[in-house]
Amino acid sequence: MINIQKALDLVLSQKQFYGAEEVPLTEAVGRFLAEDIFTDRDAPPFDRVMMDGIAIQLKDLNDPLRPNYPIQGIQAAGAPQMTLKAPDHCLEVMTGAILPQGTDTVIPYEEVEIKEGTAYVKIEKAIKRFVHGQGSDSPKGTLVLQKGKKIHPGDIGILATVGKSRVEVAKVPTLAIISTGDELIEIDEKPLAHQIRKSNVYNLWASLLQEGIHAERHHIIDDQKVLQTQLKILVQKFDVLLLSGGVSMGKFDYLPTVFENLGVQKLFHRVAQRPGKPFWFGYHEEFNTKIFAYPGNPVSTYVNHLFYFKQWLYASLGNSWTFETKELGEEMPGCPNLARFISVNLNSENGRVLPLNHNGSGDLFSLAQTAGFLLLPQREGVYRKGERFSFITIR
Amino acid sequence: MINIQKALDLVLSQKQFYGAEEVPLTEAVGRFLAEDIFTDRDAPPFDRVMMDGIAIQLKDLNDPLRPNYPIQGIQAAGAPQMTLKAPDHCLEVMTGAILPQGTDTVIPYEEVEIKEGTAYVKIEKAIKRFVHGQGSDSPKGTLVLQKGKKIHPGDIGILATVGKSRVEVAKVPTLAIISTGDELIEIDEKPLAHQIRKSNVYNLWASLLQEGIHAERHHIIDDQKVLQTQLKILVQKFDVLLLSGGVSMGKFDYLPTVFENLGVQKLFHRVAQRPGKPFWFGYHEEFNTKIFAYPGNPVSTYVNHLFYFKQWLYASLGNSWTFETKELGEEMPGCPNLARFISVNLNSENGRVLPLNHNGSGDLFSLAQTAGFLLLPQREGVYRKGERFSFITIR
Repeated sequence: MINIQKALDLVLSQKQFYGAEEVPLTEAVGRFLAEDIFTDRDAPPFDRVMMDGIAIQLKDLNDPLRPNYPIQGIQAAGAPQMTLKAPDHCLEVMTGAILPQGTDTVIPYEEVEIKEGTAYVKIEKAIKRFVHGQGSDSPKGTLVLQKGKKIHPGDIGILATVGKSRVEVAKVPTLAIISTGDELIEIDEKPLAHQIRKSNVYNLWASLLQEGIHAERHHIIDDQKVLQTQLKILVQKFDVLLLSGGVSMGKFDYLPTVFENLGVQKLFHRVAQRPGKPFWFGYHEEFNTKIFAYPGNPVSTYVNHLFYFKQWLYASLGNSWTFETKELGEEMPGCPNLARFISVNLNSENGRVLPLNHNGSGDLFSLAQTAGFLLLPQREGVYRKGERFSFITIR
Repeated sequence: MINIQKALDLVLSQKQFYGAEEVPLTEAVGRFLAEDIFTDRDAPPFDRVMMDGIAIQLKDLNDPLRPNYPIQGIQAAGAPQMTLKAPDHCLEVMTGAILPQGTDTVIPYEEVEIKEGTAYVKIEKAIKRFVHGQGSDSPKGTLVLQKGKKIHPGDIGILATVGKSRVEVAKVPTLAIISTGDELIEIDEKPLAHQIRKSNVYNLWASLLQEGIHAERHHIIDDQKVLQTQLKILVQKFDVLLLSGGVSMGKFDYLPTVFENLGVQKLFHRVAQRPGKPFWFGYHEEFNTKIFAYPGNPVSTYVNHLFYFKQWLYASLGNSWTFETKELGEEMPGCPNLARFISVNLNSENGRVLPLNHNGSGDLFSLAQTAGFLLLPQREGVYRKGERFSFITIR
């Protein structure tokens, strides 16, 4: 049995880039950028008016203003640049407009009164220029979004403004989620006393959807021959297989044997952690398939998926994933033999987390109350109140 | 000018439920539940075996174990319940199986050795029962997900397990995003010197997509007559209009006038906040249309959207939205006249946030670096280092 750091290192050693593809901007959220994004012009692209008002010529900001400025015309946003013809006149200007040639300062409407084509100034000195200088945010050619960044909605406006109607993103791996376990039936079936409906594959499927991955769902019965026949096909067909169940010590936990028969290279089986200890991970060299075989309990499966698969995915397609940290809200006894992922709730007042009481890794319903999992490393001594630990959000 | 609390109260006073609809489970992530979800059976539905091993009869857990138990057979997961025929025998049992009739305790494989049809026990006393009792997580009829909850991937497994292949969720409002401003051109166009490409509408569109809303995008030129004609149609057609630009003090900021002409009830215009001060909000009584008119600057638009619209949406369709809080990483001077939304970065080591330096609300590119916005309320005194404030994430 290895510890979680070693297990994570082995998982990350299998990181894999699946090439790039172009998608329309409107489909890019949640994908990983496969190109650096640079500004294609200065930002702002011109000296931009920051307030609605009048634009005047005022070489030194400390010079006193004239009492009034006759209005030559209006510089609207979206109109070509105008030119101030007489330096004692002004042009009305609108927020977002290009600053007229021959002017350098904007006096906001709040500080002027306009009567019969003349602007009467209520202040003696200009407050500031109110001009957003060309290139002052970033000159043309500035790197604004880095290859590997996961694209969030706020990035979409940036991509739009630099003209990326299509964006180069990392291709996602093809992926199958495979449930095993003869006690499992479909959601819309009526269970007999000893049966339960499938749930893990749906949790995984929904979580993958948020990463832009449309996974296929498969079920294979607990029969070594059938498993071997079916998995032989799936190993060749998909980049990644996620399995739930069939890796514990049970009589019908055939997966480790089947994988061996199929020529899959095991990297580890069992990790010193709770829940999720029986996690099995390996890869098929010839077909370049990565295989994450999670134990069957719902919380075990989900924790392993969020911790190992998600970090593998981020490392493969983009930049690495940094966990937030949260303060533990109460002291807890140490656990020298196993790292623990504890279900926690978030106190929004003080930002600390408190362990949720639930019935162990089989308690699927606890996931509804959980804000996420706090990772408590193996340790002899106590986990102290107020100490910070990595926090894995499930939202 | 009103303060943000008053503005928020007015926005939330317009909350609106748009009815419920049934969607397949696989389309339910991110939607708001419109029904309470109860368990349809006990959880677990039967006394469930927690470890692979042997099941025996052991009335008192403190009683010594027999040195060996002849094996009667195997109780697999997914098989109907078996019955132990002789109390000095055992049945092999698999994790997830129903506990055989006549047994009450599981001895894990780790603690036994199996030779020629008999299990030889290596320990003198049972460690624990290793039985997950029927109904011990939650008895049948337990409320497991509450109406109004936003469905996250972890909830999907719960819905699956209680048999919800279709789920009742809140309908989302129909929504149009309208850009104004003659300086704006399409993403795939080449801008002239005084033009810029649209960006706000794409930020908003992408953000709405994450809430399950497929918004229409419209652009209307800065012409009062055209605005009035077009908006008249849109006000009747959509539940919600989001506008960007056209609400400041400029000559071509016709929106407040146009809305008045169209019989839209203004609830406020201008809020004591930075950025986003010129925010305008109202509704059309007859057509029951809510109108969020954001100022044109990218950061202003986005902050107002995340703060006001998102809270309105959550209040309308589901449970209210609670902000996380974060500690400010450095002291900052107070701001008595305006509440401030400051762009911040997150220090994952200590969980504190630090303000990002950027060029004000026009600096779209700053959104790429921002983790979110910290809401600093109006205050005479300083904002103290280590003090907690509401944090609005943009991830």
